[in-house]
Formats: sequence, C-alpha cells, structure tokens
Amino acid sequence: MGEPFSAVEVIRAKRDRGRLSDEQIDWVVDAYTRGAVADEQMAALAMAILLNGMDRAETARWTQAMIDSGDRLDLSGVGRPLADKHSTGGVGDKITLPLAPLVATCGAAVPQLSGRGLGHTGGTLDKLESIPGWRAELSDDQIVAQLRSVGAVICATTPRLAPADRKLYALRDVTGTVESVPLIASSIMSKKLAEGTDALVLDVKAGSGAFMKTLDDARRLAEALVGIGAEHGLRTTALLTGMSTPLGRAVGNAVEVAESVEVLRGGGPADVVELTVALAREMLSLAGIDGPDPSAMLASGAAYETWCRMIAAQGGDPEAPLPAAAHVHLVEADRDGTLQRLDAYAVGVAAWRLGAGRGRKEDPVQHAAGVICHAKPGDVVERGQPVLELRTNDPGLVPAALNALTGAFDLGPDAPATSPLVLDAVRRPQ
Amino acid sequence: MGEPFSAVEVIRAKRDRGRLSDEQIDWVVDAYTRGAVADEQMAALAMAILLNGMDRAETARWTQAMIDSGDRLDLSGVGRPLADKHSTGGVGDKITLPLAPLVATCGAAVPQLSGRGLGHTGGTLDKLESIPGWRAELSDDQIVAQLRSVGAVICATTPRLAPADRKLYALRDVTGTVESVPLIASSIMSKKLAEGTDALVLDVKAGSGAFMKTLDDARRLAEALVGIGAEHGLRTTALLTGMSTPLGRAVGNAVEVAESVEVLRGGGPADVVELTVALAREMLSLAGIDGPDPSAMLASGAAYETWCRMIAAQGGDPEAPLPAAAHVHLVEADRDGTLQRLDAYAVGVAAWRLGAGRGRKEDPVQHAAGVICHAKPGDVVERGQPVLELRTNDPGLVPAALNALTGAFDLGPDAPATSPLVLDAVRRPQ
Repeated sequence: MGEPFSAVEVIRAKRDRGRLSDEQIDWVVDAYTRGAVADEQMAALAMAILLNGMDRAETARWTQAMIDSGDRLDLSGVGRPLADKHSTGGVGDKITLPLAPLVATCGAAVPQLSGRGLGHTGGTLDKLESIPGWRAELSDDQIVAQLRSVGAVICATTPRLAPADRKLYALRDVTGTVESVPLIASSIMSKKLAEGTDALVLDVKAGSGAFMKTLDDARRLAEALVGIGAEHGLRTTALLTGMSTPLGRAVGNAVEVAESVEVLRGGGPADVVELTVALAREMLSLAGIDGPDPSAMLASGAAYETWCRMIAAQGGDPEAPLPAAAHVHLVEADRDGTLQRLDAYAVGVAAWRLGAGRGRKEDPVQHAAGVICHAKPGDVVERGQPVLELRTNDPGLVPAALNALTGAFDLGPDAPATSPLVLDAVRRPQ
Repeated sequence: MGEPFSAVEVIRAKRDRGRLSDEQIDWVVDAYTRGAVADEQMAALAMAILLNGMDRAETARWTQAMIDSGDRLDLSGVGRPLADKHSTGGVGDKITLPLAPLVATCGAAVPQLSGRGLGHTGGTLDKLESIPGWRAELSDDQIVAQLRSVGAVICATTPRLAPADRKLYALRDVTGTVESVPLIASSIMSKKLAEGTDALVLDVKAGSGAFMKTLDDARRLAEALVGIGAEHGLRTTALLTGMSTPLGRAVGNAVEVAESVEVLRGGGPADVVELTVALAREMLSLAGIDGPDPSAMLASGAAYETWCRMIAAQGGDPEAPLPAAAHVHLVEADRDGTLQRLDAYAVGVAAWRLGAGRGRKEDPVQHAAGVICHAKPGDVVERGQPVLELRTNDPGLVPAALNALTGAFDLGPDAPATSPLVLDAVRRPQ
C-alpha cells in the first residue's frame, strides 16, 4: 500500500470529535486528489467535518493542502500592488464588473479569476459572455500581460489552481455537505491564495438571496475567511452586506452588464454605486494605495475607459449592442402603495427560471433573460404600474418564474424600515 | 428522472437532525440498492445517521426496507418451531457450533445462516471449513430438507437475503460508519427477519474482545435489537454477556471445532458449557418448547449425535482428524502467581495475526492457526509454565502475534475479582 494513513482512521478521528493532525490533512487531501481516497470516503469525512467542525488551525492547513494540490499563478511580474475581491454570491450582484476596472484605474492590479453560475445567483463569466466577442479563457501569460497593460482582468479560473477544491466541491454538491463554514471558507481561500493576490476583500452577504441567511451565520463565515487569510499572511478584510433585496435594478446577464456600464459612466442605481465604492476603498486601503478617490474616477469616466480597454483586451466590443429578449412580461402593482420589501431569493429564482441561470453545469444560459426591478423597497407605485419586468426568449418559462415570485413583494401605506447596505466589517482575526 | 426524492434532500434532513419519513427511507434504501443513489451519497447519509441517530420507528422502517431489497427464505415447510441465535462477535466464541445441534436435539429447528470472519473475531463458516469435506453453500431446498431431517443447519447466507445490507455493510466498512447502533441493529435484524425464524436470541457481548466495549453500549444495542424484533412481531430476547476474557481455551478455527466437540460430548470448558446451555434455554423458551433439559442432552451424547448428522449432511466427516499446525510457540509465566486477567482483544488479534483470521475479504484463513489458553483468570501458574500456546503454519507470523500479546495478562498474588458470564437480559422493548 505505502500510504501513511488509512482513510478510515482519518474519518474516525473527525467522527469522534478529534482534531485532524497536519499530516492527516495533508495526506487525505492529496490522496483524494490522486484517487487513493475514494469519493465515498471523502463524503463521509465531509459530513463528519460539517457536523463536528474544524478549528482555525485545521481549516488553515486544509486550505494549504488544497493549494498544494495544484499550481500557483505567478503574478510577481505585474509591477503593481495586487488586490482582489470575492463575493459569496447574491441576486443582482454585478459588482465585480464595475469594481475591477475602477480599482485598476486607481492604481492596483485586479486579477479576478471567476466561475460560472449554478443556482439562483448568477456567474460573472456568464454575464460578461453576453458582450459580443468577449472570451473568458486566458493563458497565464495573457493574464499577466493584461494586468500589466490594463490593470484588470476578469477571466475563467484555470484548472490547475486548487484541483482538490474543484473535485471536493463537486462531491459536496451531491452529498449534502456544502453548508460547512470550514469547508466553504477553505474552498474560497484556497483559490484566492493560489491565484497569488497581495490583498483580498470579501463581500460576505446575509439575507434571503444569500447563501448565509442570517447576519450571525455570515459573520461566522467572514471570521473564518479572515482567519485563514491571517494564517497565510494575506491581507484580508470582509464586509458584511445585506442581500434581502436584489442589488440594483437588473438581475440576469446582459441586463447586469448594461447596469454596470451605467455605474462606470457615473450613473446607475445608488446601492450598486455605494457597494462598488465601499469595496474599492477597502481594496485600495489593503493594497496600500491612498490618494485616488473611486467616486471621482466613476464620475470622470476614467473607470469606464479602463472597462472598455479590459473588454477589448479579451476580444469584446464594449460599444456593441447587447442581446435583447424576444419576450417581455410585466408584473404590475394591484393597488397604490409603497413597496415594503422585494425578496432577493424569489427574484433570483425567477431570473434563473427565465433562462438567466443553469440547472446543471452543462446547460447554456440565455444572455438576454432576466428580471428588471422597476420598483425597489421605499418606492411609491400606483395601481397598474410595473413592479417587475420579466425578460426571456422562451415565453413558456414565464409561468414558472411567476410562480417563484408569489409573495415576493408587498405594498403598504407607509415607508418601510431601512437598513444600511454595509452592515459591518471584519478586519482582523477574531 | 422520475425519482420521488433527491438524495441530497434526504441527506440534508438527517444532517439537520430531522426524522426521515417512511417514504424517504423506503426510497433511499431501494435507490441505493439499484444504484440510483451513489456510494458517496449513502456514505454521507450513513455518517449523518451515525452522528445524529435514528429513532426506533425509523430504525424499524430502515430494517424493513433492507428486507424488502431481497427475498425471504420460506421455512414454512420445516414442521418444527424455528429458533435462531446471533452473537455480536467475540474471541473464542464458538457457541453456535454446539448450540445449533443441542437446540435441534431438544426439538426446535435452528436455521443458522452465517458469515465469514473479518478482523479479530473469527467466522463460524471459517471454523467449520476446517472439517474435511464440509461445505458451507446450500440451496434453499437443501436448507429446508436439512432442517426437517436433522433440525440444525449452519451454512452460508444466500446473496438474495437483504442485498441492501450486503452493499451497505461493505460501504460502512470503508467509510468509518460501522459504529452506529441503528445501522448495526438494522443490519443484524434485516438478515434474521429475512431468514424467517420464529424466535431469535441475541448474544450481545461487552468487553475488550467485543464490538461494544462497555455494558452500557452493549445494552443500548440490545435494546435496539429487541425493539426492532418487537416492531416486526419476532419473539426476540437479548442476553448481555461478558467478553473481556476469551470464551473457553481455544481461539482459532480447527481448535474451536475440537473444543466444541468436547462440549457436545459432555465435557469442555465450564464457561462454554454455561453459555451454550443459557442460550439454548432462552431459544427453547421463546420457541415454546419446555421439557427437554439441554444439560442432559450434552451429558447423554444426544447432542453430539445431532452434530455428527449435521456435519455429515453437509459433506463433512465428523470423525476425521482436524488439521494440526506445523509450528507451536509457548508463552510462559515469568514468575509464580495467579492469572489476574487475560485480555480477549489481545488474544483475538494474536490468533488473527497467526493466520486464523483474514485482513481482507479475499484472503484465505489458516485452519490450524490459533491460540490455546493454558491458563484462564483465577488459575495458579508456576514460573516457566505455559500460559498461551501459539499455533501457525508460518513461524514468521509469531513475532507479530507476540507483539499483540504485550500486556495481555498479569500475574498477581491473590485471586482476581470475578464477574458472571451472563450479565443481564433484555426481554422486552424498553
């Protein structure tokens, strides 16, 4: 055999509420990646970790083992401070699109290696692929060259970064073992650490449209993420932000690109602008850049210039018209009133069912599909005025989307209570 | 798809400490058996069950679903009350060998479908296969015919009985999910219920050489077993018996057959006789047979007669010499004293390492290998007198066996405290 451990003894250690040793963690992650630990063994271990936990040191070591399963990207030749952002995912969360060129405009380099969407939250690459000609796949050399020339790159993650995470994530997805803070945190951080950024800002979302439904759960995840960053010497901050209402007014692919361009041109919805600027300030602060004002860079059009260069560098035409949906369905207010709430999860599921998202990894997405929120909480609407606009190329998908929207908003006489978008920050290990 | 549930939702229900519905249990066991639920999904569910438990009704339904995965044996044509015994496994536990013919001699039919050994406790079939000519595999018709003619059959379980249990047990073995009371209990009871006995006596062992190390753990398992029996209308009793010291003096295959024959001829070690008679009385009582005295049937040679007919019916020669080991190594007392204890687990591992047991399912066993205990706790020995006799055909295995025996016994000045062999009984659901 020649293996230093047996899978069963490692599983039993965690099952019986023990700590895994560094050597056990290194071995089990490596052995799983090369197939010497079977899927059913890792599934049992993942369930034991989900139910019995891992402490900070175990989680940091697990993260390191996943990084060591593949290569690291070498960004040492970029010549600018590197800063990246990761969002835990939300409805209408297109922030990466304006943020990357904005932060690059302010002097940092932003290597944003991203994934595709699965479920009710969209994927950054799916959104950008609605731009004619734009391509997600870049070589390592192309990434470095674009970071030097433009300062921002949003592209597909390479299969050589943390392959253990890729294999483990696919397993967790089918075995009910996704919802583990140490496993989520190590999955996110292994990819970001392997990518080689100098600074990382995490946007950890809480609310109906987020993975973490409560602020307490989001805070636990934020603390785990910042803890791993600290253990690995990566400057890391997490903002805790609200995700009970969709971000901005557009939810989908092309519609989110269009809204991002509005923001980059100095306009756009206030919440998208606020979060973009808040995250930019955190990234610049961590990267040690002070001076440039992100708000001013949006207002001046400088960030939009960088956007156009970033899109063009990956083959896209930033001026080309975006795809439009063949079919539009309006959901109207049934009386006069003030919108009390607009449920992010319901809107996310509706956009998904309209074709903006995929049910299985292999499925394509409709670039033109999505939902436009004509009213947001606090807006006054009159009877018959549109609240939501559903867009799709397949009108047969509308009934399922409407079904998802049952009870998604309320109208009432008074202005609803409001809460800030940025709820809190975690800036150092707890 | 056409499946009424997804594996992930069933896993999540148990992960989140919920009850599984009857429909979920029926589906997941059936879908796993036919391959629609993957090994990694069942492994995650098994770990969630191990850590979060199943209540009595869930366990009973799980047992039924495993029975329904295969066929039941039809023993309605046997024409005698049926009584079976199951032991949770111990070192030197050859009780099935004298017990089955003894109970048959008293008027019941004993359908003892057995397995092979894996680990430090031996397997009944491995022991009997040391008898020249004896064969373990019988057809259903042969089983019924032998129960009618002889009254006792010890043979290999058929692959059509509870195939879900077979598949699940192999999975649990490699995923650290063996040690779950509901899964152990449903595994044992699904096979016994599918076998179609009228009454079942369980010998649940507690101590170093047993699966359950403490009496409390053994009692929990006994209560789960009796509970399942009650839910299924099977007359079931569990005896809780000690397994800190090997049963009898012989541990291995041929050596245990020889000791069983001594008991059947009215002799043999007192503890083996005591437990055989105690279990026989329970079986006869549950089967509704009173009158015949098992002790008298051993003393008269009547039980030995049945043994000879049972062995001969399966091709064995009950008078043939048993295989003898080529190599013997004695472990001697290093001073005068009274044996304080003799650790069952250590002796079991030593016999296993000498070749009496197998490391992997595919391995053969040495029929002649094993350990003879020349002294048992309470026996007085002199310096240089043998305490243990190691037998093997491969002297290269002796050092590993001696290593397992480090600290396996102590000599002291006084008689050790004794505890009864039968510690307690569970006769009705708690």
